[in-house]
Amino acid sequence: MSGRQTGRPTLEEVAALAGVGRGTVSRVINGSARVSDRAREAVARAVAELGYVPDRAARALAGSRTDAVALVVPETEARLFAEPYFLDVIRGVSAELGAADKQLLLTLIRTEQERQRFEQYLAAQRVDGVLLVSVHRDDPLPDQVRALGLPAVLNGRRSPQEPLAYVDTDNVGAGRSAVDHLAGRGRCRIATITGPLDMDAAQGRLSGYRQGLAAAGLPEDERLVATGDFTEDGGRRAMRELLARCPDLDAVFAASDLMAVGALAVLRARGLDVPGDVALVGVDDSPVARHLDPPLTTVRQPIEEMGRRMAGILLRQIAGEGGVEPSRLVLPTELVVRRSS
Amino acid sequence: MSGRQTGRPTLEEVAALAGVGRGTVSRVINGSARVSDRAREAVARAVAELGYVPDRAARALAGSRTDAVALVVPETEARLFAEPYFLDVIRGVSAELGAADKQLLLTLIRTEQERQRFEQYLAAQRVDGVLLVSVHRDDPLPDQVRALGLPAVLNGRRSPQEPLAYVDTDNVGAGRSAVDHLAGRGRCRIATITGPLDMDAAQGRLSGYRQGLAAAGLPEDERLVATGDFTEDGGRRAMRELLARCPDLDAVFAASDLMAVGALAVLRARGLDVPGDVALVGVDDSPVARHLDPPLTTVRQPIEEMGRRMAGILLRQIAGEGGVEPSRLVLPTELVVRRSS
Repeated sequence: MSGRQTGRPTLEEVAALAGVGRGTVSRVINGSARVSDRAREAVARAVAELGYVPDRAARALAGSRTDAVALVVPETEARLFAEPYFLDVIRGVSAELGAADKQLLLTLIRTEQERQRFEQYLAAQRVDGVLLVSVHRDDPLPDQVRALGLPAVLNGRRSPQEPLAYVDTDNVGAGRSAVDHLAGRGRCRIATITGPLDMDAAQGRLSGYRQGLAAAGLPEDERLVATGDFTEDGGRRAMRELLARCPDLDAVFAASDLMAVGALAVLRARGLDVPGDVALVGVDDSPVARHLDPPLTTVRQPIEEMGRRMAGILLRQIAGEGGVEPSRLVLPTELVVRRSS
Repeated sequence: MSGRQTGRPTLEEVAALAGVGRGTVSRVINGSARVSDRAREAVARAVAELGYVPDRAARALAGSRTDAVALVVPETEARLFAEPYFLDVIRGVSAELGAADKQLLLTLIRTEQERQRFEQYLAAQRVDGVLLVSVHRDDPLPDQVRALGLPAVLNGRRSPQEPLAYVDTDNVGAGRSAVDHLAGRGRCRIATITGPLDMDAAQGRLSGYRQGLAAAGLPEDERLVATGDFTEDGGRRAMRELLARCPDLDAVFAASDLMAVGALAVLRARGLDVPGDVALVGVDDSPVARHLDPPLTTVRQPIEEMGRRMAGILLRQIAGEGGVEPSRLVLPTELVVRRSS
């Protein structure tokens, strides 16, 4: 045995004990024919003596399957539970993976330390693939997953140049249809509360908002744009900012329903009537939109379907049916008009 | 190579190829000295030729650690997201595991098929230990985990004879303190909405309720006991039952806040005032209790602390510091009086 007290035997130690090069060890492990019987035997003996277990080989020999898939949400528990979007994604993913008899493992990543730990977890080949939701532009995890060569699908791309497979919705169209609708109702001081601008979904909805203004012949006014973070609190903060800058605004397009809930609370507290004084439109069509008073006009995303499609693409990747080009799927959105606008 | 197209090579195949018995193969793999050099060499050759990877050995040789822990919730996504109890447990578990640099994997088990799949996942040694919440009496998973010899801690025991480690709260005390309080306010037709009676927590709270009645000199009346399921809907159904049977009840002890929310909605719809006509007490002290109108009197469980303590006990088990006797920890509860009683 080697003198190491802990840790697993390395390829180098096997090579040293067998008296061959590292390449020879790899070839034996990978079942290559280009190895002499003598070398093969020496490596086999060293492997058994050291108890060497090649991770990748172990996985390959075990049939390449852990039958488990990780769903990564880079958020706190509080945010996970507060955001109905995640429930619907999980529901869709879960339905698809369940039908394929795969184990879904949900994991939250909130700190750099947790990200590093999760990367090690992935490197140990403990799951067949990874689903990533709520991805921000500078998140290093997608590239790490890619470097590991693991099957992976994003919920929302990081940028239009996204190299990984993703399922997204038409974010530009969402912003555009909200503003078309508000302008069509005669509103001309239309504000927006954006998502976090390091997310492509937020950028897309903001572009759509600008396109909508241009199409309606309304001028752009940066005072009518406030940055939120997709949370209810963020919606409240942004709404206060907007009212401080432009007390005469007559409509708000909030880039998520939860932010619209926050905005509505602020408008109410200021004695402003929705939709009388200010029309309000959200995005998602989460249950909260229907139960709000007044019920919220919103741009519906097919969230559960996104979850199902992500899982479906991942399952095909795992089965080796992914093709060379990563799948890029953009699902349409739909305006649902209710009493808030 | 063997003729099998898929699946991993078995111990039997190694034994057959090496021309030795299964026991010899095991002894070689486990590094026993009681094996001849010739047998050891034959096994080593067969192991390398077949690419045999012993699961347990692989784990032992890799340092026994996956650095991942599974948290199992036997509920649907909808129920997971609707029940603040789970958020707090996850928060506590997550804090403790994060500090110990362990990966938390959350998994939902809703069907027999999912349970079987998860058992296979556990048997493959892909996690260091398991935390189980919301365990019902006849759930086979805890015994399977026990048979696998995996470190495991339950959130709530299955029965007073629970052989596994668990962290629980004083459920009997919770029921007792709720009824003591209601009787102390002069209520004498005190009903209860129980949890699912195949859960020890529900049985314990019901025992406490009965003890409270006896201590107050109030007669037991089975018409005042309705079975719920810890959900808001279940609380609504049980409240309707109770009112149909005993329209003159003057207090309700609901064994969870969420069931109290359902009960309150039914009482309201019947034009009954809380607490004027009917006093209401819940269990948990989840955020909903504070935000209810009127704010809900409830028996506080230290849920986040339960999560932390469960994770702490599991980490000690994983580190081999568990001791012979499983840990049994019962945390105290505390009555929080608000306006509903």
